[in-house]
Amino acid sequence: MRCDVLAVGTELLLGQIIDSNSAWMGGELAAHGIDSLVQVKVGDNVDRIVVQLERRLAEADAVIVCGGLGPTHDDLTRDAIAAVMGVELELDEAVADAIRNMFESRGRRMPENNLRQAMVPVGATIIPQTRGTAPGLICPVTVDGVDKVVFAVPGVPHEMRDMFARAIVPELQRRMGERFVIASRVLKTWGESESGLNERLDEVIAELDTVGNPTLAFLASGWNGLKVRLTAKAADAVAAAALLDPWERRLRDELSDLVYGADDDTMESVVLDLMRANNWTLGFAESVTGGLVGGRITDVSGCSDVFRGSIVSYASEVKFDLLGVPEGPVVSEDAALAMAHGARRVLGCDVALSLTGVAGPGEQDGQPAGTLCCGLVWPEGEMTRSFRLPGQREQMRQFSVINSLDWLRRTLA
Amino acid sequence: MRCDVLAVGTELLLGQIIDSNSAWMGGELAAHGIDSLVQVKVGDNVDRIVVQLERRLAEADAVIVCGGLGPTHDDLTRDAIAAVMGVELELDEAVADAIRNMFESRGRRMPENNLRQAMVPVGATIIPQTRGTAPGLICPVTVDGVDKVVFAVPGVPHEMRDMFARAIVPELQRRMGERFVIASRVLKTWGESESGLNERLDEVIAELDTVGNPTLAFLASGWNGLKVRLTAKAADAVAAAALLDPWERRLRDELSDLVYGADDDTMESVVLDLMRANNWTLGFAESVTGGLVGGRITDVSGCSDVFRGSIVSYASEVKFDLLGVPEGPVVSEDAALAMAHGARRVLGCDVALSLTGVAGPGEQDGQPAGTLCCGLVWPEGEMTRSFRLPGQREQMRQFSVINSLDWLRRTLA
Repeated sequence: MRCDVLAVGTELLLGQIIDSNSAWMGGELAAHGIDSLVQVKVGDNVDRIVVQLERRLAEADAVIVCGGLGPTHDDLTRDAIAAVMGVELELDEAVADAIRNMFESRGRRMPENNLRQAMVPVGATIIPQTRGTAPGLICPVTVDGVDKVVFAVPGVPHEMRDMFARAIVPELQRRMGERFVIASRVLKTWGESESGLNERLDEVIAELDTVGNPTLAFLASGWNGLKVRLTAKAADAVAAAALLDPWERRLRDELSDLVYGADDDTMESVVLDLMRANNWTLGFAESVTGGLVGGRITDVSGCSDVFRGSIVSYASEVKFDLLGVPEGPVVSEDAALAMAHGARRVLGCDVALSLTGVAGPGEQDGQPAGTLCCGLVWPEGEMTRSFRLPGQREQMRQFSVINSLDWLRRTLA
Repeated sequence: MRCDVLAVGTELLLGQIIDSNSAWMGGELAAHGIDSLVQVKVGDNVDRIVVQLERRLAEADAVIVCGGLGPTHDDLTRDAIAAVMGVELELDEAVADAIRNMFESRGRRMPENNLRQAMVPVGATIIPQTRGTAPGLICPVTVDGVDKVVFAVPGVPHEMRDMFARAIVPELQRRMGERFVIASRVLKTWGESESGLNERLDEVIAELDTVGNPTLAFLASGWNGLKVRLTAKAADAVAAAALLDPWERRLRDELSDLVYGADDDTMESVVLDLMRANNWTLGFAESVTGGLVGGRITDVSGCSDVFRGSIVSYASEVKFDLLGVPEGPVVSEDAALAMAHGARRVLGCDVALSLTGVAGPGEQDGQPAGTLCCGLVWPEGEMTRSFRLPGQREQMRQFSVINSLDWLRRTLA
């Protein structure tokens, strides 16, 4: 089964919005065993949409058209699909009522052009909207005697994702003639390159290749590390879990403490959970990161039972006067340890992590850009560690955040 | 002139990387008066690259192929272009030497497959690399008797952008047979919606429509606000500046202090410059943002002459004990003002900005999610202000950062 994607919108070609929808759909389709081999962006021009849609349909079994379903004269996806199907558009009264009701329930007047969204190509099935006004469409088409399908979904990401999971995946599976579920398990790792993970998992990968189900993939996720994803295809969820469980254990054995979490875990949620398990509160002393570590830990809602705060001591005098760091070079493990002790005292927390380093450009205290020194103090001990990170400012600072949190995790786990 | 884009890489279809290159190129091409009407993603498969490239060439005057120029067996852009041109690949000795030298100068052994990057379709011109190993290509092709061109550039964004500006734009301009420059001026605004800006600039836009040169565009840039871009086409840079200057003054008059900067300015660089102009040092007291304001100001290299630090007082006790906030509700303008005074004392800075609020989910101190209270203390005065921001956690926190910095800027400018 092959399902290509056509993203519609002049704003996508002008760089005003980056089309991330088709990439997301490509990933999801792959996880369901469906190829997406060509993905196209085209502007709000009905002739060009028709040409590109016909080309995708000539090559693929299914095409998802994303965007161009809104109420304005620029929204031409419905017209283009009707042209490709060789049918007219007609008003769907149920959709029209739903749109009218939505405006009424919010006490707003409905501009008449909203009814454009209730126009449906004859023969198409509605994917009801649950979040916006424009419904999606499932449009059967025959190409050279072959039964194919065009889906239309809104370009608003959360509306698109909802319809994709609710209507597109089941319809594609039905067309594949198989009743199965696809289930994934994701292990999140930090501290090893893709080729390094590959090497460690050499044997497991060879065995999985022989077995064929589940499959394994590496997914880079930047400053969140590398994900190792197992994907299994089975008759139902229980059978899929039974396929995944033993391989997940194998992976965890091979990768050991490189794995910091699974599925929805983040490095910061894992650190917070570790603190909770020990009944510890947490604080930071930041210099080179300027507050990014605190900013990241507070991304997690409900962190306030653990997180006390952070002393961003960017100027050396703040390190000396507030944190009690002895005067002298401030990019060193000694200074980092003193910062951590100072933060623990000032913030009244059980565990304190500190970061001092050189984000560049240029060196500081004789240390090159990319140097990071960390200190860690907890109820039963203290420790320091240095890192050599990539020397570009933004990278260096973001890598400092994740490396220091990962080091805290491994040290205290 | 029409220049389409073909992005090559299976990782783009699998959603492992989002193709932002083609959107960037589309924006730049539009700014140079060149249409980019269809943009395509295709995987690392030479037959499919050839088919898609031929289709783009049939419709457009020029095609930029982005990605697939690396050293591995998956990098097939060179082979596909040679096939479309109907020529062989040959080793370019100068490129080969440059690649060998690059490895030598870094004291590293060169894996032999790197020489794939020195293979060039016969008849193509090299775009020399200045940042990586793979050179770009300018490949003339004849389609149905019409002279067209294929460009190949690496997928690494900064390498692509460098080659785009240095080689692709001049070649496209040469082919357009016009000698002109395109110059832009960007005004950055915060505090007004796109439709609001539109309304304020109603008359200016009508006049510009009549004149036709320069043109005006609004560009959303998320948490950095809205950009208003003037683009002029003229014989040379001096003439372009003469076209832009009076319209920039008109825009600044109409938009007044909504404009926080121009071109490469950021909100944080503008705030730092304002401090420097007054010979003031700066510090923060953050609660709801957890350190994001400090994290953002320290994105700017060289901020250390101004920025002292930030007290991230997430727990109420840290506000009371360290910053001297009177015990009581901590989401209020009174608490914010006390936080700012506390930060100014503890950090020893001239200007202190504070943020306390509710990121949600759920309310705090009787205030709904989305509430932000700010305090500002400077040598000659003090002020507070409340904001009602969107209630989703990440949005609320990022809007807090930009709104508080913008308020500081307007208050102290």
